[in-house]
Amino acid sequence: MDELILIGIGTGNPDHITRQGEAALRRADAVLIPRKGAGKGDLAELRVEMCRAVLGSEDKIIPVDLPVRDAGGDYHQGVNDWHDAIAAAWSAALAANGSPKTVAMLIWGDPSLYDSSLRIAARLSPKPKTTVIPGITALQALTAAHAIPLNEVNAPVLITTGRQLRDHGWPQGADTVAVMLDGECSFQMLEPKGVDIWWGAYLGMDNELLFAGQLADVCDEIVAARAAARQAHGWIMDIYLLRRTNCAETV
Amino acid sequence: MDELILIGIGTGNPDHITRQGEAALRRADAVLIPRKGAGKGDLAELRVEMCRAVLGSEDKIIPVDLPVRDAGGDYHQGVNDWHDAIAAAWSAALAANGSPKTVAMLIWGDPSLYDSSLRIAARLSPKPKTTVIPGITALQALTAAHAIPLNEVNAPVLITTGRQLRDHGWPQGADTVAVMLDGECSFQMLEPKGVDIWWGAYLGMDNELLFAGQLADVCDEIVAARAAARQAHGWIMDIYLLRRTNCAETV
Repeated sequence: MDELILIGIGTGNPDHITRQGEAALRRADAVLIPRKGAGKGDLAELRVEMCRAVLGSEDKIIPVDLPVRDAGGDYHQGVNDWHDAIAAAWSAALAANGSPKTVAMLIWGDPSLYDSSLRIAARLSPKPKTTVIPGITALQALTAAHAIPLNEVNAPVLITTGRQLRDHGWPQGADTVAVMLDGECSFQMLEPKGVDIWWGAYLGMDNELLFAGQLADVCDEIVAARAAARQAHGWIMDIYLLRRTNCAETV
Repeated sequence: MDELILIGIGTGNPDHITRQGEAALRRADAVLIPRKGAGKGDLAELRVEMCRAVLGSEDKIIPVDLPVRDAGGDYHQGVNDWHDAIAAAWSAALAANGSPKTVAMLIWGDPSLYDSSLRIAARLSPKPKTTVIPGITALQALTAAHAIPLNEVNAPVLITTGRQLRDHGWPQGADTVAVMLDGECSFQMLEPKGVDIWWGAYLGMDNELLFAGQLADVCDEIVAARAAARQAHGWIMDIYLLRRTNCAETV
């Protein structure tokens, strides 16, 4: 492989793709599409649909079954080992399918934000040239759906994870906090007074779900809606923005 | 006006526009294009070119001359008054051009991130429905150009402004800091030891400029290159990412 093109495809609306992303997809010899297992099947299927829409066929697609992350033991070591295993799976799938020179991957959201593809690509040997095509992130799909600014005037915004919020509470440094990768509705652990939340799931898709309001008012509603939607669809991807409006601490 | 559509157009590469953005541009009755003055002329021109590329003509364009912000006095009050004046300028331009029902605006980057259009739209009377189409931000164009992840694994990222960095130094809460709206190379004020920087200007454009390295090594080079480029082009838009690699404080 001479070049790996990581194409950000946005969050499920096929029209999130940019002209630059479409051109890159056409330029590639092959498109590597990971399958994470039955529960997340919709996402692999969406990538296949996107190939069909842009390329008119599925001919370039090379599917690859991904290993499962060992959730026990040290978190960072587990992630590290998992990335090694994924790089090996990519290489094996490409070798078994004619070793294409220019390979594209369709990356949910943007390849730079809480996505592992760049780190996995760095483990390939020999290391191909890596080209990144930016895409719409879930955070942008969230603020667009609610038609709100991410930041307040001249004020900082912290992007963090559910795990960080659970481990450390409201983070230092910002009154606006965007939370990604949260499978546990970790906003429940915060003191809700003076906090507003804008929450979204399946952003950009037909079954998009949105809630907004004071955290004290909508917290339980979001938890219940999330559980029901996850049950109904078999999977969920959600994100939220928290803003402290009334607090003594300022930056 | 029944509907105002704020379309994120990315950072200067016309191919940053999404399919969703193209569709919204076609759907609009008119496209309001602000002119900020001679120094930033390139940006208005780029929006006009984008209209020509997508719509095949300039027929829908309504230009509007923007008032200048009063840089004296209180910062927040100055911004507030300026936004009032811009909303009045938008209304006057639309009224003078047949009061179109569905109006699009082409927003640099993404309408949610350090852009004022949503706040200005909220001042319109009567207030139209506001639709946001997300676009590629300068931050994404930066990480894509350098082919780097924005975040470290499970770690937070703070997005902030040059003014914040000047007023408060390295912010609390994150070892990765993205800085926008910095006309003064405020990274010069930081203790450079253990800090890496990835800097970019004119991202996505033909004259894109990139620097990366240890802050101590490239700081002066960036300051000089920025001054020279600004002089040559008459304007500059830049952004950078800072990452602390070797420090006692952790989150």
